[in-house]
Amino acid sequence: MPKITGFHTVDVRFPTSRGLDGSDAMNQDPDYSAAYLVLETDDNALAGHSLVFTIGRGNDLECAAIDLLAGYAVGRDVDDLARTMGDFARSLVRDSQMRWLGPEKGVTHMAAGAVINAVWDLISKRAGKPLWKVLSEMSPKEIVDLVDFRYLSDAITPVEALEILKKAEGNRAKNEAALLKDGLPAYTTTPGWLGYTDEKMVRLAKEAVADGFTLIKLKCGVSLEDDKRRLRLAREAIGPDVRLAIDANQVWDVPAAIDWINSLGDVNLHWVEEPTNPDDVVGHAAIAKAIAPVRVATGEHVANRVVFKQMLQSKALSFMQIDASRVAGVNENIAMILMAAKFGIPVCPHAGGVGLCEMVQHLAMFDFVAVGGENPDRVVEFVDHLHEHFVVPTQIKRARYMAPTQPGAGAEMFAESIAEYTFPTGPAWVNN
Amino acid sequence: MPKITGFHTVDVRFPTSRGLDGSDAMNQDPDYSAAYLVLETDDNALAGHSLVFTIGRGNDLECAAIDLLAGYAVGRDVDDLARTMGDFARSLVRDSQMRWLGPEKGVTHMAAGAVINAVWDLISKRAGKPLWKVLSEMSPKEIVDLVDFRYLSDAITPVEALEILKKAEGNRAKNEAALLKDGLPAYTTTPGWLGYTDEKMVRLAKEAVADGFTLIKLKCGVSLEDDKRRLRLAREAIGPDVRLAIDANQVWDVPAAIDWINSLGDVNLHWVEEPTNPDDVVGHAAIAKAIAPVRVATGEHVANRVVFKQMLQSKALSFMQIDASRVAGVNENIAMILMAAKFGIPVCPHAGGVGLCEMVQHLAMFDFVAVGGENPDRVVEFVDHLHEHFVVPTQIKRARYMAPTQPGAGAEMFAESIAEYTFPTGPAWVNN
Repeated sequence: MPKITGFHTVDVRFPTSRGLDGSDAMNQDPDYSAAYLVLETDDNALAGHSLVFTIGRGNDLECAAIDLLAGYAVGRDVDDLARTMGDFARSLVRDSQMRWLGPEKGVTHMAAGAVINAVWDLISKRAGKPLWKVLSEMSPKEIVDLVDFRYLSDAITPVEALEILKKAEGNRAKNEAALLKDGLPAYTTTPGWLGYTDEKMVRLAKEAVADGFTLIKLKCGVSLEDDKRRLRLAREAIGPDVRLAIDANQVWDVPAAIDWINSLGDVNLHWVEEPTNPDDVVGHAAIAKAIAPVRVATGEHVANRVVFKQMLQSKALSFMQIDASRVAGVNENIAMILMAAKFGIPVCPHAGGVGLCEMVQHLAMFDFVAVGGENPDRVVEFVDHLHEHFVVPTQIKRARYMAPTQPGAGAEMFAESIAEYTFPTGPAWVNN
Repeated sequence: MPKITGFHTVDVRFPTSRGLDGSDAMNQDPDYSAAYLVLETDDNALAGHSLVFTIGRGNDLECAAIDLLAGYAVGRDVDDLARTMGDFARSLVRDSQMRWLGPEKGVTHMAAGAVINAVWDLISKRAGKPLWKVLSEMSPKEIVDLVDFRYLSDAITPVEALEILKKAEGNRAKNEAALLKDGLPAYTTTPGWLGYTDEKMVRLAKEAVADGFTLIKLKCGVSLEDDKRRLRLAREAIGPDVRLAIDANQVWDVPAAIDWINSLGDVNLHWVEEPTNPDDVVGHAAIAKAIAPVRVATGEHVANRVVFKQMLQSKALSFMQIDASRVAGVNENIAMILMAAKFGIPVCPHAGGVGLCEMVQHLAMFDFVAVGGENPDRVVEFVDHLHEHFVVPTQIKRARYMAPTQPGAGAEMFAESIAEYTFPTGPAWVNN
């Protein structure tokens, strides 16, 4: 019966802005960072780890927000939490004084997610299983109890969620066997950063295809002429059968998005990602209608389940890109996965950054095993960057995420990496 | 040519949860608080003041967020800023690393607003005028330059905004004379807190009518039977001609809101405020359609101009309740006021809390003088609470906000009040 006895946060930042990795039209100079949380227990061998991904300035603020909420976990018994994670998650999100600072958005909401995810890491380690398996072994009723249905009932009710889960229950064993054998398909953004030359982009795109990727994504949105040229070159490089997507990172107004996308020429785009502001449900819906048959993907900056609900109700997206650390943790992301299943939309998680691949793969695998099952459109983003800092790094084989079998929720970093990149006192920052 | 030389923030909290003032269905125990910012200049007689209103826990986090952004103002010349406030506001909101933490929502967005509003306080004091007059004396072109039109062009363009302002320009002198003579109508929430007995509510409602108020508002949403009884009693107390509104503070899901509101009986409701989650544009639109002719008001928790834009596009609200400290300051609120004018919706600011009346009245007065002109539906919330702490407190006469004539933007508090209520070291907290 291990008990949570305390916590600490660390401001970890990687000086990625010194290169051009991660550059896009909105985020010119990100320093990939982790507001890192450790929940300590009275068992020296057991700690819960999670992180909120940020891109530099403000990572300290995110740590401070986590400090304000992590106290909710202290004193709690891990086994008791394992039985009541729905209540625990709701208590964090509904702290009425803290709620004023959102509600359910921004720094405080991501902090709630960090605490919730760290508890899930504890629960998974205590169970000796990876998070995806812990979730996939819960009963439909237990899974429904994890979700905060507040504000969702015009789109999905607990009864409907239960039906979706029960319908999928018979396929769990088959799905799990398939997952363990073949993993889940990944797609890659590695070739597509805006800072890369045409030659580098083409070379990396060809390498990606050779590695087995069936979808590659390019950043876009700074220059229409550049985008047209890069897409033509990329399509030539990858051939007609590999899927090609673009990501605008919110640079356009609605009319500009429509004009730009409709001017790109026929390169058979699989999706356009984040064409405009992530709060703009009405705008995404207008864009989706105007650029069909090209489809819209979005979600990495969608603040919470209420915004995703509206995106689904309004047919504003065709691919739901959940993010492991943007919302209130595993629990709220299960709400997204259930809503996507209800509306028949594939969940294609956002990843990259620091630790997002390691964390979000568990949610995609849970979706595959216990909710959505086989879906040719389910694909998980992969960027081959910074994985060496994680105790259980992602394993990609033939362009597929192989299921982790080690216990935990994926965010634990090596102590040496944390020490090296602690901001501003770590060697990586002091010695530069 | 005064220059901004530094800044400091103070965590100021009033222990209002010890009484029942401010209690509603969502916020049971608020400690009305101010994340307070002072911008210092090289002129000892000149400082810029602003605040973000919060309700307790997390007020320190809001101060930390302001600390991260206030540096943008340091070293800047006040007269230069007065000419370039559009650029300054955009630079704060578009800091690409900080933007990741929102974007444009929550703790960081309110912090940007605090910095922007403190600079407006400096500009107004430097000009020796109240903020409403500074804004009302700017040319249409200068006002348009203040606004960040990013993500708005499908609803309003700079050219359309300019037309609105030019059309109103000829009435400015007449409107200002009317404002200085009669002020703007206030409405009161004082009778309506949930914690009050029926007797106290009825007594305060009658007093409000005797004081000249023509709209009173009751909190609702905990018990349908209580709401029906309280509304019947309130309507009896105030008579048929005084307007009666209710405020649910986001407690309902969409179907529940519709059922509840349509079950209240015929008490001739003027508006229903915050029936559901403030991010739920689609939900507000569904509610508005289902409860007509009763109308929807919302806005105090609307995160930014992109959400308000969609509320207008979707006919989700009939009254726009801007808040002085929720968004990115005076500049973003001017975007709201211009959009409301375009869509023909009255701006009825949220106030109360700490300092919100003092701050937001300037925006309503600017709207009246230079944008929307005379509008029988424009009304500004008033709660008679905590005004004694402000250097320029609101002046209500016969239930109308009288225009302040003193220089500044309204948020400056007395040093003694700040010292008394500084958390957790001030006497109000130590001695309890």
